[in-house]
Amino acid sequence: MASYKAPLREIHFVLDDVLNVGSLSQMPVFAEATPDVLSGLIDEAAKLIEGQIAPLNAPGDAEGCKLANGEVTVPNGFTDAYRQYWQAGWVGIANPTEYGGTGLPYTLGKVVDEMTCSADVAFALYPGLTVGCFEGILASGSDEIKQTYLPKLATGEWTGTMCLTEPQAGSDLGAVKTKATPNGDGSFALEGGKIFITSGEHTMADNIIHFVLARTPDSPAGVKGLSTFVVPKFLVNADGSLGARNGVRCTSIEHKMGIHGSCTCALQFDGAKGWMVGAPNTGIQNMFVMMNLARILVGMQGLGLCELATQNAIAYAKDRKQGKAFNGGATIIDHPDVRRMLLTMKATTEGARVMAYETGMYVDISHHHPDAAVREEAQDWVELNTPLVKGFCTDSAVDLGSLAVQVYGGHGFIREHGVEQIMRDAKILCLYEGTNGIQAMDLVRRKLMLNGGRLPQRFFAKVRAESTGDMPLGFIAKPLREAVDELEKTTLWLQESYKTNPDDAGFGAVDFLRAFSLTYLGFNWLRMAKAAANHSDAAFREAKLNTAQFFASRMLPQVQLLCATVRTPAASLMQLSAEVL
Amino acid sequence: MASYKAPLREIHFVLDDVLNVGSLSQMPVFAEATPDVLSGLIDEAAKLIEGQIAPLNAPGDAEGCKLANGEVTVPNGFTDAYRQYWQAGWVGIANPTEYGGTGLPYTLGKVVDEMTCSADVAFALYPGLTVGCFEGILASGSDEIKQTYLPKLATGEWTGTMCLTEPQAGSDLGAVKTKATPNGDGSFALEGGKIFITSGEHTMADNIIHFVLARTPDSPAGVKGLSTFVVPKFLVNADGSLGARNGVRCTSIEHKMGIHGSCTCALQFDGAKGWMVGAPNTGIQNMFVMMNLARILVGMQGLGLCELATQNAIAYAKDRKQGKAFNGGATIIDHPDVRRMLLTMKATTEGARVMAYETGMYVDISHHHPDAAVREEAQDWVELNTPLVKGFCTDSAVDLGSLAVQVYGGHGFIREHGVEQIMRDAKILCLYEGTNGIQAMDLVRRKLMLNGGRLPQRFFAKVRAESTGDMPLGFIAKPLREAVDELEKTTLWLQESYKTNPDDAGFGAVDFLRAFSLTYLGFNWLRMAKAAANHSDAAFREAKLNTAQFFASRMLPQVQLLCATVRTPAASLMQLSAEVL
Repeated sequence: MASYKAPLREIHFVLDDVLNVGSLSQMPVFAEATPDVLSGLIDEAAKLIEGQIAPLNAPGDAEGCKLANGEVTVPNGFTDAYRQYWQAGWVGIANPTEYGGTGLPYTLGKVVDEMTCSADVAFALYPGLTVGCFEGILASGSDEIKQTYLPKLATGEWTGTMCLTEPQAGSDLGAVKTKATPNGDGSFALEGGKIFITSGEHTMADNIIHFVLARTPDSPAGVKGLSTFVVPKFLVNADGSLGARNGVRCTSIEHKMGIHGSCTCALQFDGAKGWMVGAPNTGIQNMFVMMNLARILVGMQGLGLCELATQNAIAYAKDRKQGKAFNGGATIIDHPDVRRMLLTMKATTEGARVMAYETGMYVDISHHHPDAAVREEAQDWVELNTPLVKGFCTDSAVDLGSLAVQVYGGHGFIREHGVEQIMRDAKILCLYEGTNGIQAMDLVRRKLMLNGGRLPQRFFAKVRAESTGDMPLGFIAKPLREAVDELEKTTLWLQESYKTNPDDAGFGAVDFLRAFSLTYLGFNWLRMAKAAANHSDAAFREAKLNTAQFFASRMLPQVQLLCATVRTPAASLMQLSAEVL
Repeated sequence: MASYKAPLREIHFVLDDVLNVGSLSQMPVFAEATPDVLSGLIDEAAKLIEGQIAPLNAPGDAEGCKLANGEVTVPNGFTDAYRQYWQAGWVGIANPTEYGGTGLPYTLGKVVDEMTCSADVAFALYPGLTVGCFEGILASGSDEIKQTYLPKLATGEWTGTMCLTEPQAGSDLGAVKTKATPNGDGSFALEGGKIFITSGEHTMADNIIHFVLARTPDSPAGVKGLSTFVVPKFLVNADGSLGARNGVRCTSIEHKMGIHGSCTCALQFDGAKGWMVGAPNTGIQNMFVMMNLARILVGMQGLGLCELATQNAIAYAKDRKQGKAFNGGATIIDHPDVRRMLLTMKATTEGARVMAYETGMYVDISHHHPDAAVREEAQDWVELNTPLVKGFCTDSAVDLGSLAVQVYGGHGFIREHGVEQIMRDAKILCLYEGTNGIQAMDLVRRKLMLNGGRLPQRFFAKVRAESTGDMPLGFIAKPLREAVDELEKTTLWLQESYKTNPDDAGFGAVDFLRAFSLTYLGFNWLRMAKAAANHSDAAFREAKLNTAQFFASRMLPQVQLLCATVRTPAASLMQLSAEVL
């Protein structure tokens, strides 16, 4: 089965040597979150995750979840491991102290997320959705609602869900039909069916808090008539104790390609009692507070699976003897095509990690920096990076899962080796929290346009500043500058063409997201190469510089082709009658 | 669940209007295989396959195979369907009449294979390996062996296997250890363990004939010391009746990512009685007779899954309402990114079909044309095309399976919709009968070098002849000529660099195989566009021309990038010590 060892040297290198995570502790709120403190916590989390979570991954996949009499049974070991996990403080590590969290940086939370997702991405969904639900209530809930629900969500003692999807309303949330009728006492009665609800029913925690998108009577049609509600599985008494079972039940669980350890529930709300979170008809905005952070979390899931695929493939290739390579090597790592696959995996995973962690740091800065202008700039970065992190890391997880299977050969197709599970688990990441097509449209339609189009310009300026001038790393700086030029040209084309022919922009959106992400990775590899040049470990330095070389010469050039493809008009293809396809 | 309707209009278009399948009937052996006859047979096969095989696909995946007391149980319905299938003549359709086959073109057999694989690729492996075993014995067996085994393999009344792999011997067959010791009566006693044996044990047929790679005592080490043996599950008496159970048994079956309906067996040979096929120590050559044809079959499996993914995704996208498209459309087929995915699928599947069927026709010509020079040229094409068909069609099956899931959104991840199964079933195709990395090395290391390098030159000349001159289809002819120029340049680079630095060639082999295949598809799209220009159905014509446009503008340009990447030296990456990775 796949094994997992937290890539601590790599994590510390990115945080300390590439991104200077110490800068976070210069913000008053994180004065105590020094690099040493973060480093110690990461090492501690790694121990629990490697020891208690990773061993659940393969058996949890084989066993899956079961529904009987309305009760969901999660895989053996999940309940104990979850208790250890939240009691050790990892669910609440980055939640604010005022509601019982530990109040450490979001960035640290994302590092823990990456490791947990590598170890068992299905397991990681239970704390993951809990934090999402917490964030949604935190952003929009009344004081009473916050006091009632947040402390136990903050720590993970209770778990949370996001209840958006209905059979007719997936990407199109405007089609949501679930109704919330006022009871006259400030509460609402919810009626309707939701599907694909992750962690919707289980007994790993004493209570489950549902964050539900629904429609009040006489509200406007479409997304403008949606409100958000908090609906607990068990009603909460004034003293905080648990009361009656609420009118929400699990009617079925899905049988899925992967993430078998995560229960994906259909929930029926039959007059369930709920309380509105935020103002009426602002549900879509409230939901997007948590959705945006959830998208970054999904990106971490992708990164976690990229890491798992990469480290297992490298270990297997070092061990597996098969034939004799041109260079005389006896294990398959010396076969050129195997090495090509491994370097693709390594270049992708390590480059994506910088993008993901940097996005985490921008979230921290956008929330906590004392200077409003700095917060605003950081928020720009969060907006721009979110679809890249979600889209690129998850597409890469599928690709790298497939490459891991390929490196294992026929053995990779056999379940006991554990790498086929990576491919199966990864695919959902490209679908939920907005499909990757939706991420690409978010990038092209919204993020390129926001604030007069300044978001991408910030990126171009930053990359140019890093890559310009005479430098020994010209092997990557030069193609990076070329990539940025091409990306800027394409950005301008999209900003213009979107106004006149949105179909063209839509047709190229996914390719553009990939081009943007690869350029970002090029920027990361340049920074990693610079940081590694001073690294004390010669082998680490050599691996970094060679992987940077690989990325620069064999992956970064994709940007040119992708951009050219984006700029190819597609109008005639959209005019083609759907019937003839 | 995924549904399957044989794409008969498309199949007939490719055979009749693009490839002129009627030319086969000009060879005496196929005088009766006129286009009308082939067409009628294809329609008849489609009925059985749609009606009896396709319905087994989803339940067979859910049920899988089971092993108890050495007996393998295949999914419910498989045994009946298999009986119908072979009794209707479909297993033996292209096997020669002298051993009880129907003697129709191999090309027809491949069309039937494509449809069967679309319907249920796990089921298709039972007849598929049977034909492979038949071909192996036919090519090298003595008259006695042929008379004993071929008639019942030819029809499919008995099934066959290929027993190559051992735990330490996958891609590297030279490491095979199974021993064959002469019994002194002309037979041999086989001892050893084989793994990953498709259809290795079941009761769908009265007998199973194993075609086994093993080593006689004192034979040379490596691949030069291997011989092939026929080892029946039940010994065959002189009168053709079945005798004692032979000493070969199934010790376990694999639990796999996909193709659950196909039993993948570990077989233990404990003094099993076998007979040598062909001369001593020529096993690897004998095996490659069937292996090369098996590779084309695996390509058909890939094509079949490409078709299944494409037709289901298109149907779903026409039906699924979600949001409003820019062009006002209410179903997701009008969303630009969905349409981009569908056109990618359509362009790939239809383009690959021409390549696959054309390869089938070359096989027929290489076997049966009266003119030796024509046979020799056709054999060149078979050699060149085999790795392309195997590698490209199977990589595409994984990609298109993933795209189909993406088109379905979250629903695609749910097993009942049936498209996630395509992705799971497809991945094995990239691994068995030589991984796709091995296919790429076969192309670069062998096929580019064969007969003084004339194979690729034949291709370049043919494509140039088709695409040169002033033509209304310049939109594809022009980029196709550019692609061929680039491909030729890269071919010359590889032919040269292989001599001095095979690591460079090996590093670029997979990208080169893809570049070659895409150029081939460009050639196919040009020919399809020409043929469609005269098609009586305006909608069909419009779809073909637009898909050709899509391919020319958004897929064919990948050739330039892939070729540039191939020509990028990789020596430094191979010199990097494996330990630092």
